[in-house]
Amino acid sequence: MNLYDFIRDISDFPKEGILFKDITPLLLDTKAFETACIQLLEMVPTPIDKVVAMESRGFFFGTHLAQSLNAGFVPVRKPGKLPAEKISNTYDLEYGTDTLEMHKDAIQKGDRVLVHDDVLATGGTAKATCEIIESLGGTVVQCNFLMELEFLNGKNKLSNYPIKALLKY
Amino acid sequence: MNLYDFIRDISDFPKEGILFKDITPLLLDTKAFETACIQLLEMVPTPIDKVVAMESRGFFFGTHLAQSLNAGFVPVRKPGKLPAEKISNTYDLEYGTDTLEMHKDAIQKGDRVLVHDDVLATGGTAKATCEIIESLGGTVVQCNFLMELEFLNGKNKLSNYPIKALLKY
Repeated sequence: MNLYDFIRDISDFPKEGILFKDITPLLLDTKAFETACIQLLEMVPTPIDKVVAMESRGFFFGTHLAQSLNAGFVPVRKPGKLPAEKISNTYDLEYGTDTLEMHKDAIQKGDRVLVHDDVLATGGTAKATCEIIESLGGTVVQCNFLMELEFLNGKNKLSNYPIKALLKY
Repeated sequence: MNLYDFIRDISDFPKEGILFKDITPLLLDTKAFETACIQLLEMVPTPIDKVVAMESRGFFFGTHLAQSLNAGFVPVRKPGKLPAEKISNTYDLEYGTDTLEMHKDAIQKGDRVLVHDDVLATGGTAKATCEIIESLGGTVVQCNFLMELEFLNGKNKLSNYPIKALLKY
């Protein structure tokens, strides 16, 4: 099974000139979804204590990785969504800034943490997430992505961390 | 294992006077997460062709239900997030309106569909989702929730559909 067959190109989304890689055909195919889970898992160095995934497309595979790794699942969310005591990180975008939040009690000192998201683009979101994890005393064991848009050079921003991506464009 | 032990009360969130039911302790515990998946599945009448889940907390368990039921997974998202041809539904909130979107090719005529979200509150989101599914020719077999806030009477709005919830408040 070739997982690339389940990624659909959409022109001019979210704005003109951008070719968007749509993963919804992969979600819609049970066997392709299962295969992606298995292949993502094969890249991960065990043991893992926590899987941290970013809102909201990181949640699709993040909870499966957590279950298979016998690890806790931790959502990273946009501001104002998490109800308990939390830690925030604001990071630069091409224009403006963005902010991520995580519950403080989600990571314990010494936790071995897998960071997962669907796409590695410029790497800003993943870097901000890794910084939060480290500020709570966790170790980022791997930044794990379903796909990497290599031409955006996100790897440069994440040079402190091991990176793995299943599909590369 | 008592799943209620993994739901945390947070006072005055998202605004004063509201007691928020926080599911993140359940996500953080591998065994509790697995138990919730198993118990959610036990409520579902099979076969199911598609599991439709709402952004973004519906994604936590929605993809697991889809895998276990050998069904396709379909995300319902906030406006502007889905890239391909889609169908929208705008529905009333207490103050103002909200809009949901789904890809048109996600549901085929005759599909037996399970709708899943983490919480049944007033039922507006679930009802809007069911209407989209029906407009595409699918049949809503069950509206399935991790928890139901019974005092908000969401069942009234969903009286056309079978409803199941694992945890009740």
